[in-house]
Amino acid sequence: MDDSIKQALIDIVGQSNFTDSLIDLVSYSYDSSDHEHRPDAAVWPTTSEQVSGILTMANQRRFAVTPRGAGTGLAGAAVPAGGGLILDLCRMNKILDIQIVDRRVVVQPGVVYADLERALNPYGFFFPPDPASGKVCTLGGNVATNAGGLKGAKYGVTKDYVMALEVVLPDGRIMRTGSNCMKSVSGYDLTRLFVGSEGTLGVATEITLKINPKPLALKTGLALFPSLKDAGQSVADIMHSGVIPSVLEVLDDNSIKVLREHADMDLPDVMAIILVETDGYTEAEVSFQMDIIIDLFKKNSAMDIQAADSPEEAEELWKARKSVGSVASQLRANNISEDVTVPISKVPDLLTGVSNIVRKYGLPFVVFGHAGDGNLHPKIMYDPSDPKEVEGAKKAADEIFTLTCDLGGTLTGEHGIGLAKAPYMKMEHDPVALDVMSSLKKLFDPNNILNPGKMNLDE
Amino acid sequence: MDDSIKQALIDIVGQSNFTDSLIDLVSYSYDSSDHEHRPDAAVWPTTSEQVSGILTMANQRRFAVTPRGAGTGLAGAAVPAGGGLILDLCRMNKILDIQIVDRRVVVQPGVVYADLERALNPYGFFFPPDPASGKVCTLGGNVATNAGGLKGAKYGVTKDYVMALEVVLPDGRIMRTGSNCMKSVSGYDLTRLFVGSEGTLGVATEITLKINPKPLALKTGLALFPSLKDAGQSVADIMHSGVIPSVLEVLDDNSIKVLREHADMDLPDVMAIILVETDGYTEAEVSFQMDIIIDLFKKNSAMDIQAADSPEEAEELWKARKSVGSVASQLRANNISEDVTVPISKVPDLLTGVSNIVRKYGLPFVVFGHAGDGNLHPKIMYDPSDPKEVEGAKKAADEIFTLTCDLGGTLTGEHGIGLAKAPYMKMEHDPVALDVMSSLKKLFDPNNILNPGKMNLDE
Repeated sequence: MDDSIKQALIDIVGQSNFTDSLIDLVSYSYDSSDHEHRPDAAVWPTTSEQVSGILTMANQRRFAVTPRGAGTGLAGAAVPAGGGLILDLCRMNKILDIQIVDRRVVVQPGVVYADLERALNPYGFFFPPDPASGKVCTLGGNVATNAGGLKGAKYGVTKDYVMALEVVLPDGRIMRTGSNCMKSVSGYDLTRLFVGSEGTLGVATEITLKINPKPLALKTGLALFPSLKDAGQSVADIMHSGVIPSVLEVLDDNSIKVLREHADMDLPDVMAIILVETDGYTEAEVSFQMDIIIDLFKKNSAMDIQAADSPEEAEELWKARKSVGSVASQLRANNISEDVTVPISKVPDLLTGVSNIVRKYGLPFVVFGHAGDGNLHPKIMYDPSDPKEVEGAKKAADEIFTLTCDLGGTLTGEHGIGLAKAPYMKMEHDPVALDVMSSLKKLFDPNNILNPGKMNLDE
Repeated sequence: MDDSIKQALIDIVGQSNFTDSLIDLVSYSYDSSDHEHRPDAAVWPTTSEQVSGILTMANQRRFAVTPRGAGTGLAGAAVPAGGGLILDLCRMNKILDIQIVDRRVVVQPGVVYADLERALNPYGFFFPPDPASGKVCTLGGNVATNAGGLKGAKYGVTKDYVMALEVVLPDGRIMRTGSNCMKSVSGYDLTRLFVGSEGTLGVATEITLKINPKPLALKTGLALFPSLKDAGQSVADIMHSGVIPSVLEVLDDNSIKVLREHADMDLPDVMAIILVETDGYTEAEVSFQMDIIIDLFKKNSAMDIQAADSPEEAEELWKARKSVGSVASQLRANNISEDVTVPISKVPDLLTGVSNIVRKYGLPFVVFGHAGDGNLHPKIMYDPSDPKEVEGAKKAADEIFTLTCDLGGTLTGEHGIGLAKAPYMKMEHDPVALDVMSSLKKLFDPNNILNPGKMNLDE
């Protein structure tokens, strides 16, 4: 990157908000996927106008700009595949407004999910998606990836809660989308074009979110299963039954083993565990739903069913679930984390199918995830210095995508396409749809400066 | 329209699916707004391939095509403002698939909302939006306008339930968007670009919808208020309180009077009525929520509060609410039906403000609507042969839009922009956003053949 560009960036954001030191650039080469690429510089803008100035310059001087939140993305969307500049939004981290009566908060993109949760708690409100990385991930990242989380089957995903955005377009223009109202059908839905666009169409610099009142009653339960198929079938039966649990998660035998052996958790040696939560305003309501669910566990051969007796006990169970990913990653230097999703009726087939595929390659793996919306997380650990393991992991991932598409599923339920799944877009999508997506990318970013190389839409 | 074009259309759809008879063309000049324009011909396609052939031809021969469902739209989106061809989807009216375990149905665009409701009922499932025109409106129309309805504040709107679409683009290409899974973040969200696009970007020929289990318990209540302000304030308090009623509707004094005098309904002579419903799985849950709501009614000076004692009694109350619009329309030959929406905290100001505005012009009017998501329906009746009344109605609408935007609201919560609100787009939207919307229109429809003249986006 030309020194004159670097100086111009410093002129925009100030010296203390610019870096091109090697150690910073190396850190910014990665997100939480197994992809990497070195950028040339990084900036921490603090205003929308600065972001606008930077993108305007990027268009004039033709350098790539990769927006970044906390770097917890699992698909490589924040990896600067085109080199160029990292646009780190973490210093735009204010909660700008909370209007409980309008069920609305306004945040800057660098606000951490858990910080928003803490701010809303005293009001008895919350922002539902609840991604497992909530302690560190940012709302800007949540919007860019349309993050899901544990509460998806009942409460939906980030996209269902974004009311309005301020977006800086690749050409530098600042635009407002959406409305401060609970609903609006005024013109095209630009908001939902940007949500989940993985930072390739624009950079969100202000986010208006709908928030929900917190349920007053919760019930948490756990069931142990003798096989993945039984666990999977109980998921399908539950989602069919007329109740919608607020959380419905599955852990396979590998996940259980990993937590037992590497995180010292006292979990039994079974083939699958399902964790479930029901919510509502009253004890009667949560018990009614849980009773139906328990009957379905029993119908599907659950060996043991336990309820959490206290909020603390429930908290321990969710902590276990949320830490599977990071504990499992410790088994090898690298891993592939997928989030293949299928229609609910196909969850048993996906669970058993993924297990069979990865076993063939002899690599450590876990399968866990948001069974309630058909979204599983196969995580395959591999040693990047061992070509056999590298190849095995990639082949396993290939076969998992093929299986998923054969089952009528989607490559990604919540992580996004990024770099990791870009080669598989043709496997899932209609060629006309892919062409339309590419046309949209070209319309917004004719010079392909904003997060180039992602999703294979800029070919 | 050239005879050769008419013959070519007959070749595509067959003689029995084509008309250019005067009586048909006159009928197709209208939707349920006060706009009109005569088309040159109309067709009833029965397959996606026919729709594709028609749009391809429209591009080659440069004639306008206006898609149409049941014509219940209130903004003129189905009025053939450019003349040309009406593309009436009502003969594509099959429910193609119901997969309860996947919470998914697939329908053709001409399926009537109430027919889908009937088909899902035996399974204990439903498609939540519940527009008041549900007995006649079509799912294609619901998708084109992103229809809302009585259940919006708790269950959201059509857009929240569309999983996938088959769309015929203006150039004739057939495209699939979305996924059969409960969630997907695979590529750009093309689905939500088309939902609410009012038939200006493409024609949906197959619609995949998410469905919900029906709640098992309902409680319906009614409260009478001495002023609009009190009624409005109770709405704000309720939506703030931590419960979310499944329905929260308001009727002003004019609505009540109209129902009493013209529909023989036994309603008291008060300034406002609020109708509320809570739902859940258990009696305890619905009562808990209703008790909180009743307390807030009392806090806001409710003169009387009644609960519906039976499902039949509840049904009567909802019938009253749903018929206000059509009963009121009988008061004059024409009317303007708005659906201005504001943040909840502004509902009291909008209710009283609208009332004050329209009173000035001495025209009969009603104000009712989905108070729970800030969406009111001012309906102003006028005699189109009386220039003073025509001018009065238009001025009142102008002032209502100005008031709405001043309160931070949106021109339309659920009816859409169409022709009726197209002149006001600049009042609500950022110029960059309007420019982007126009660019999208040009991208998909460079020859402006599909539903031209709508939303002022093709200027």
